[in-house]
Amino acid sequence: MSLMILTRAELEQCVSLNKEAIQQIAEAFAALARGEAIMPPVLRLDIVDYHGEVDVKTAYVKGFDSFAIKISPGFFDNPKLGLPSLSGMMVLLSAKTGQLEALLLDQGYLTDIRTAAAGAVAADCLARRNCRAVGVIGAGAQARLQLQALKLVRDYHYLYVWARNRQQAQAYAAAMECQLGVPVEVAADPETVVRQSDVVVTTTPAKAPLIQAEWLHPGLHITAMGADAESKNELDPQVLVHADRFVCDRRAQSLALGELHHAVAAGVLAPDVTVTELGEITAGIKPGRLSDAEITVCDLTGTGVQDTAIALHAYHQAVARGYGTTVDA
Amino acid sequence: MSLMILTRAELEQCVSLNKEAIQQIAEAFAALARGEAIMPPVLRLDIVDYHGEVDVKTAYVKGFDSFAIKISPGFFDNPKLGLPSLSGMMVLLSAKTGQLEALLLDQGYLTDIRTAAAGAVAADCLARRNCRAVGVIGAGAQARLQLQALKLVRDYHYLYVWARNRQQAQAYAAAMECQLGVPVEVAADPETVVRQSDVVVTTTPAKAPLIQAEWLHPGLHITAMGADAESKNELDPQVLVHADRFVCDRRAQSLALGELHHAVAAGVLAPDVTVTELGEITAGIKPGRLSDAEITVCDLTGTGVQDTAIALHAYHQAVARGYGTTVDA
Repeated sequence: MSLMILTRAELEQCVSLNKEAIQQIAEAFAALARGEAIMPPVLRLDIVDYHGEVDVKTAYVKGFDSFAIKISPGFFDNPKLGLPSLSGMMVLLSAKTGQLEALLLDQGYLTDIRTAAAGAVAADCLARRNCRAVGVIGAGAQARLQLQALKLVRDYHYLYVWARNRQQAQAYAAAMECQLGVPVEVAADPETVVRQSDVVVTTTPAKAPLIQAEWLHPGLHITAMGADAESKNELDPQVLVHADRFVCDRRAQSLALGELHHAVAAGVLAPDVTVTELGEITAGIKPGRLSDAEITVCDLTGTGVQDTAIALHAYHQAVARGYGTTVDA
Repeated sequence: MSLMILTRAELEQCVSLNKEAIQQIAEAFAALARGEAIMPPVLRLDIVDYHGEVDVKTAYVKGFDSFAIKISPGFFDNPKLGLPSLSGMMVLLSAKTGQLEALLLDQGYLTDIRTAAAGAVAADCLARRNCRAVGVIGAGAQARLQLQALKLVRDYHYLYVWARNRQQAQAYAAAMECQLGVPVEVAADPETVVRQSDVVVTTTPAKAPLIQAEWLHPGLHITAMGADAESKNELDPQVLVHADRFVCDRRAQSLALGELHHAVAAGVLAPDVTVTELGEITAGIKPGRLSDAEITVCDLTGTGVQDTAIALHAYHQAVARGYGTTVDA
């Protein structure tokens, strides 16, 4: 048996946060909505002793020769040790034989890209065409990537940022002003961000809501990509009630791990509430934004089809470029 | 980041089916029973198009520096392509930081060993001390390993084998007579195997029961290790009712994926029936076999703690021997 090993450095050369990656993720969501993907529930291991967690995600998309299994650890005391919180890898297997094809030692890079790409897909489906000001809650790696991805689908001219750590928000503003070429303002509070923006992206590991329903205004779109576990929650349950439309990447995951979980737990939405999945929009089964005044919310929990899509995209790029080391095992 | 890659050939040198491996697995079960392990439900992806399935298993055992995530594909049309049905790998991660430590490219070897070792643990807890004749249902790789493992804990003198494919049973008999140094007889049917044996191990992917309750006799112990998915079933539900004691590796897994699943579905056992977990016996919390006449049944579904235990054992052996290739990723 021989298999290919790809390092993070190689994968960074193969995959960028660009329109092609966004397209791959949009198509993966569409396959899921059309019933062309098999995606089991996330496997999650919590190692409370060390403030750590591991998610394993996978999905098979019909017609694809391979599928990925993604191992995604998050250990939140790592920065004290000089290590990044997030790491991990993807394993690419043949969909026909189960044989290992490639080990993608991406240390979370591909997850970063596919997560930001999903944000762009959500905005492209649900944000107003004419966005002027947009906002971001949080100032970490995803806050940067999400706003970079958003710029590829909406040509916004002003960015508000708020983060619990004001210094980090200031550093974010300085870096992103340079990178995006738009003015970035550190807002006094989340309310200012929401009230001033056409699109807001929340990118935090918050365990209590940061965004209140009273701040919603006509034409607003919110993408909440932080919550991916039972305990995480960025939106007040009333936000889901007062939005004209609630969309999510995968209903079952939002209900188990995302914002829908908290709205149902709070009793403000019924467990069987009808919601739109993002892939229903990218597949053309349901419409995107219906009017400039509509208030839309999209909850992203992160799905195995995104992992399979980005892993295959990376693998094909790597093969085309002659990258990778072959190991005889 | 650097991590160690170990090939199957290296892992075969590091880990054998011996008393040390059996002891590691017995201790892993004990840790699970003492509440010292965190073991989430199995992640399972079915790729029906290609008659394939993938299980992902993991567990963190308190006090261990590392834990394994095991990717275990089974693609049952592979033999037609000249490939083995089972393959896969294990990933060893730091329990303190989540960083990748080693990739164990074992192609299912470590699963084979830890599964057979669990059979030996079950027999050592539950089979009569003085076993004369034993039996096996099935004639595949696990049928060989299970009886090899059993010989390490019970000095049996005669072996009956039955398999759906009689030629395969005959090949098994020839090979195992040589390997074990005991006479091996191909039985006419499963009933003969059960009626003649003190210990029976079932090792098949059967989807309908192979063993009936009328064949049970005082002193018999059965280990059923085939069923590890909703559809698989080796024991008639009445076998569980008529046994004096039903033991399993993990109650929740037997109830979801194993023999307990079918007994509850058939309505012959209540979903909240009290059962013994194997680790409760190896931990000394509950007794093993109580008398020479007791009829005992143990259902093994395969657990993440076994994977973590065998992966760590293999890794430590490999480090001690200077094996492995280091990759900078």
